[in-house]
Amino acid sequence: MTSCITRILTFVIIGGTFPITGFAQQMAFQWTLVASGVWKGVAGKAETISPLSVAGIKPRLDGLKKLGERSFPTDLNESVHQQTDNKTYLRFPLKKGEQLFGLGLNFKAVQQRGTIKTLHVDHYNGKDNGRTHAPVPFYISTLGYGVLINSARYVTVYAGTGVRTDSQEMPPEKDRNTQRDWSAQPYSDAVEVIIPASGTEVYIFAGATPMEVVQRYNLYCGGGTLPPKWGLGFTHRTPTLFSDEKVLQEAAEFEAKGYPLSFVGLEPGWQSHSYPNSFVWDSTRFPHPQQFLDKLLQKNIRANLWINPYVSSHSPMFKRVLPYTGSHMVWVGRVPDFTMAQARDLYKDLFSKQHLSVGISGYKVDEVDGYDNWLWPDVATFPSGIPSEQMRQIYGLQFQKMTDGWFRQRNQRTYGLVRGSNAGASAMPYVIYNDYYDHRDFITALITSSFIGVLWTPEARSSKTSEEWLRRMQTVCFSPMAMLNAWADGTKPWTFPDVAQDVKDVMLLRMQLLPYLYTTFAQYHFEGKPPIRAMQLVDGFTFDSKATAATLHSTDNPYAMAVRKDLNDQFMVGDYLLVAPLFAGEKSRKVLLPSGKWYDFYTGNFVGEAAIIEITPGLSKIPLFVKEGGIIPMIPPVLHTPKKGEKLALTVRHYGKTEANWAIYDDDGETFDYENGTYTWTQLEVRKNQAGTLTGSWNPTRNNGFHYSTITWEFMTK
Amino acid sequence: MTSCITRILTFVIIGGTFPITGFAQQMAFQWTLVASGVWKGVAGKAETISPLSVAGIKPRLDGLKKLGERSFPTDLNESVHQQTDNKTYLRFPLKKGEQLFGLGLNFKAVQQRGTIKTLHVDHYNGKDNGRTHAPVPFYISTLGYGVLINSARYVTVYAGTGVRTDSQEMPPEKDRNTQRDWSAQPYSDAVEVIIPASGTEVYIFAGATPMEVVQRYNLYCGGGTLPPKWGLGFTHRTPTLFSDEKVLQEAAEFEAKGYPLSFVGLEPGWQSHSYPNSFVWDSTRFPHPQQFLDKLLQKNIRANLWINPYVSSHSPMFKRVLPYTGSHMVWVGRVPDFTMAQARDLYKDLFSKQHLSVGISGYKVDEVDGYDNWLWPDVATFPSGIPSEQMRQIYGLQFQKMTDGWFRQRNQRTYGLVRGSNAGASAMPYVIYNDYYDHRDFITALITSSFIGVLWTPEARSSKTSEEWLRRMQTVCFSPMAMLNAWADGTKPWTFPDVAQDVKDVMLLRMQLLPYLYTTFAQYHFEGKPPIRAMQLVDGFTFDSKATAATLHSTDNPYAMAVRKDLNDQFMVGDYLLVAPLFAGEKSRKVLLPSGKWYDFYTGNFVGEAAIIEITPGLSKIPLFVKEGGIIPMIPPVLHTPKKGEKLALTVRHYGKTEANWAIYDDDGETFDYENGTYTWTQLEVRKNQAGTLTGSWNPTRNNGFHYSTITWEFMTK
Repeated sequence: MTSCITRILTFVIIGGTFPITGFAQQMAFQWTLVASGVWKGVAGKAETISPLSVAGIKPRLDGLKKLGERSFPTDLNESVHQQTDNKTYLRFPLKKGEQLFGLGLNFKAVQQRGTIKTLHVDHYNGKDNGRTHAPVPFYISTLGYGVLINSARYVTVYAGTGVRTDSQEMPPEKDRNTQRDWSAQPYSDAVEVIIPASGTEVYIFAGATPMEVVQRYNLYCGGGTLPPKWGLGFTHRTPTLFSDEKVLQEAAEFEAKGYPLSFVGLEPGWQSHSYPNSFVWDSTRFPHPQQFLDKLLQKNIRANLWINPYVSSHSPMFKRVLPYTGSHMVWVGRVPDFTMAQARDLYKDLFSKQHLSVGISGYKVDEVDGYDNWLWPDVATFPSGIPSEQMRQIYGLQFQKMTDGWFRQRNQRTYGLVRGSNAGASAMPYVIYNDYYDHRDFITALITSSFIGVLWTPEARSSKTSEEWLRRMQTVCFSPMAMLNAWADGTKPWTFPDVAQDVKDVMLLRMQLLPYLYTTFAQYHFEGKPPIRAMQLVDGFTFDSKATAATLHSTDNPYAMAVRKDLNDQFMVGDYLLVAPLFAGEKSRKVLLPSGKWYDFYTGNFVGEAAIIEITPGLSKIPLFVKEGGIIPMIPPVLHTPKKGEKLALTVRHYGKTEANWAIYDDDGETFDYENGTYTWTQLEVRKNQAGTLTGSWNPTRNNGFHYSTITWEFMTK
Repeated sequence: MTSCITRILTFVIIGGTFPITGFAQQMAFQWTLVASGVWKGVAGKAETISPLSVAGIKPRLDGLKKLGERSFPTDLNESVHQQTDNKTYLRFPLKKGEQLFGLGLNFKAVQQRGTIKTLHVDHYNGKDNGRTHAPVPFYISTLGYGVLINSARYVTVYAGTGVRTDSQEMPPEKDRNTQRDWSAQPYSDAVEVIIPASGTEVYIFAGATPMEVVQRYNLYCGGGTLPPKWGLGFTHRTPTLFSDEKVLQEAAEFEAKGYPLSFVGLEPGWQSHSYPNSFVWDSTRFPHPQQFLDKLLQKNIRANLWINPYVSSHSPMFKRVLPYTGSHMVWVGRVPDFTMAQARDLYKDLFSKQHLSVGISGYKVDEVDGYDNWLWPDVATFPSGIPSEQMRQIYGLQFQKMTDGWFRQRNQRTYGLVRGSNAGASAMPYVIYNDYYDHRDFITALITSSFIGVLWTPEARSSKTSEEWLRRMQTVCFSPMAMLNAWADGTKPWTFPDVAQDVKDVMLLRMQLLPYLYTTFAQYHFEGKPPIRAMQLVDGFTFDSKATAATLHSTDNPYAMAVRKDLNDQFMVGDYLLVAPLFAGEKSRKVLLPSGKWYDFYTGNFVGEAAIIEITPGLSKIPLFVKEGGIIPMIPPVLHTPKKGEKLALTVRHYGKTEANWAIYDDDGETFDYENGTYTWTQLEVRKNQAGTLTGSWNPTRNNGFHYSTITWEFMTK
């Protein structure tokens, strides 16, 4: 911990030192250890409302303790803060060669050094400028630390762009006329931050690796969410004006054709009024909600309800909720102030009665992000007195927290969709989605979600060609929520006949991988490791990120901006599975394999080691690679996730030629009993016998919700 | 003037009235008449630094008086302001059917109702989101008023988007499930503004028409700039590493080939060091600046110097300017704080000695706008104590003001280029330019510049085809600065042989139109009428701007956003000339003709009246149309603008069949003596004789700088 000192800035220049007026004093932080490897500092006067306060985080102290002790990252000793122009300024040092990740859910770039962002909850609209669904003010450094600015304001981050006159390592001045190494972006030695508020909390997370930093962040925020098992099956959303009968017919069609389905999503028309919303069932389309949901559940299918939070005058709670709504409307619907318990209670009453008690399993929470054109403006006021800027930043997060609480009280896990989130969301049972539909960018978002404690789904909606359809369905099956959201144009998994079988295959592969996926989520929960992992979080990953020289072009690139190399199109699912998707139009692609041997998932063949390989995999399968010693437990290709207590045969694949062991997780798959210890980790072990042959073994305890009856070992690499 | 009242907001709803906590008090404005038809109000505590204070405006009281008296626009009586969350909130009423224009230099849309912008000086980067070179916080209503928010902060404007619960005319709630007229953007009855500051001045400009409002704004800001005559000729910029000899050779090439040239622009390499800059001549490329500039001037060609304001350690003023520079650098160059007289004085000394005294006629001021990646960040501090946000908003404006002052002191008019501006710039002798190079958007910017007291050039840089080249050269010749800026790739007017003659023709037409253009600028100066005029500023213009229904599309337009009709591709030059450019790839286009008869400029033929016509004009000429009674004075196709005292023969064209008269303006074309009355307005009159034949007459005073010796009348319409 550094002592609190103040500094007077001076300009040291050739010929003398000038004291500078107009500079307020910069203060060093005073860091307090708040958990193993986690420190808190306060700049100025921190505000009451913050992402972490809204998320109501409960750090997983057991997990943090397991990660061990770390000392304060000395690289951050020189961090300072300052009050200026009714704002709070923060500065954190940055070393040459250091790389940064995080800073919100980004759709274009993984590496963040050299970027500028104003972090602002909004619909993502094509540029990584900070306006995104989860603008988490958190960054991770390759030097082994993370910085979280726990502010619910529009935080602007200059991630290594500004060059200060008092820099200890000022870059040399160049003549652009004559020196070819003139750069539009000279070296910057700091991350600088400005927060339009009186102050903020700052958290530092230490770690030997970026992964350890992310683990600490997720564990401090309560550990990652552990979805119910049905949440990891396949989901499909039905047209907005469908009746109960039509929904049941569509579910039956999946069954008849042999495509898996674990939950259906009902779009706005399940309500009597929507946009704004009554939140009550439409009595013509859904005359008997309970009976309808019972029928679905008999088929082992759950139901999710679309909502947005904005209240119609036709809602039964309209009059009562009015005093707790803001000055501006969204589509002529009232905007509840959920920081007020009165508003939350009214929602809980109505939603519990209308939805939870009849069997609804989760929500899709729309339009808690943007656009500015229809959300409440930043000039809006709210009855609690909370500024609309803060309300915008925490609205989606607060809705997640509120609904999560309802389900927890019922000891029932939920798993839903949301468009707005922020810091502290790791434990929230929600996956982020949006309407932006660029496939490549969707995959980059999947990767960047792994740094900031949120989940993302590259949902499939529609496609121009069967190739695109298959490519989209392949990738959504390797994401936190395998969702088809094509209700508006009616595309079904089998719509393109020439790829219908390939689509079915990858959907069933998703189902087979359930034990692996579920364990991966258990790692998220207990160890803080995200289920989807950027390559940059993987041990043995190296990547030359040096800026490559760019060419001046008078109109396209007048400042000869260098383009940084980035790796934004491959990722890991869990410990072993490397996914390298292809996009429509591509016949081949490059895959970067980290150090260690890698094997083809489908054949077990060796493919490379610490190399960039070129693959031409054909259309039918998504390229998957497994690390040396990889253990992948699988179940048969079921159409629904197993019911509580249902026992399944386990097939465990092993890849490579080395001994290995891996723990598989299981529990009841539905309740929060695992929070009280009702779960099982079972070791899957592969050893060489004296003849050098690999053999597998396990010793299951068969209690606490362990669902696997028999085991078959498959040694994939010959 | 309204008395100052306060209100307590209440929610009036079905069933009762709830007092709302958390709302601060809203205050009515107290309006003070500050000039004929101009009122000022103050919200909160206005800041010292504002665009108008930096521009140091001197209202043209004579011009304002001529416009006559107007009463306060009653539509604005209900305007309110409020302090909230360290910000200032403003609200101005908005009626159904009212249209809005202005809100900065926009490149996509002319109509602004329904938009949201955070006005921020920046390079324009493809979206009309408020980040632009001249984010002037001024809007004009079709109901006959304009509102200027005189703040140097990042002002956010919701131009009719928010729907308040206390709205007097709340739009009806709709069910999106079942009602096809559900709208993503229901009617909003207000412009709402948020300013992150303790307060602001607000100015209201009245007017019977949008044009009269714009006139009042420009006159209040000092009247529009009147360029030297050479500024309206053709200009060409030479490669950055050219020597004096090469520049002279290139100028000679224009002369030899018969292409006009009035001033050349020297790019960064005229200096010994640039990016950052020494501001002194490079002694190898320009050993004798005075001799070089004298040789140019003998050919009647002026010179303009590229600069940006950022100081190199190699500049002779480096050590002295250091105490007056900010905390952050731009390309390792120091950033002067020009709000400090000491910094301005150092620049004046060096620039006067190095540039003005040897004959430099003007500057091209680069990089006073953005991008964020290389400009000083918003966390920077400056020795005067001015926040960097304000510095960003006024930096380009202040540089214009400073350099304008140097030339005024020499009684020498200048005309240059700049990338950053703001409110109050009407009188500044600068034209805005940038690197964005979309031809169609460049023309929209030309149109939107006319609302906000700035000038814009759609400079020609390069083209992929001869067609594109000709189309770009055609339009730049109908702009405030006819500039070729193709030094980086070496394109010349004659580079594409198949259109070289057509390019020459339009460049010479520009020269021929000089008397008309110069008079048009005199109208800008004395009457406040912008030289380029949006059709929306023209009498007799009507346009159905009603939102057209749009179709829901699950990925491209999930909210079925309506697309507003807009007219953003045709404009007026002065009183009579309608320009309807074509863009590469177009063979035909639609032209909207306001009420009154319109004629083809080239043939005099009648083309239509209050109609939308379709034209297929061929490649060689830019479509030009003249209003009934249009009088267009022209000179011979000269290669240089006339020297002081040089007399030229005048040819005056008349279009249509009616009597007409129009005043032509002239003065010495170089000095500020016109400010003391040394100028001439001469009536050009067309009357019908008893036989019904049109005849022209004039009665020139031939003094005060009147340059026309003889007159020939051409009655174009047979």
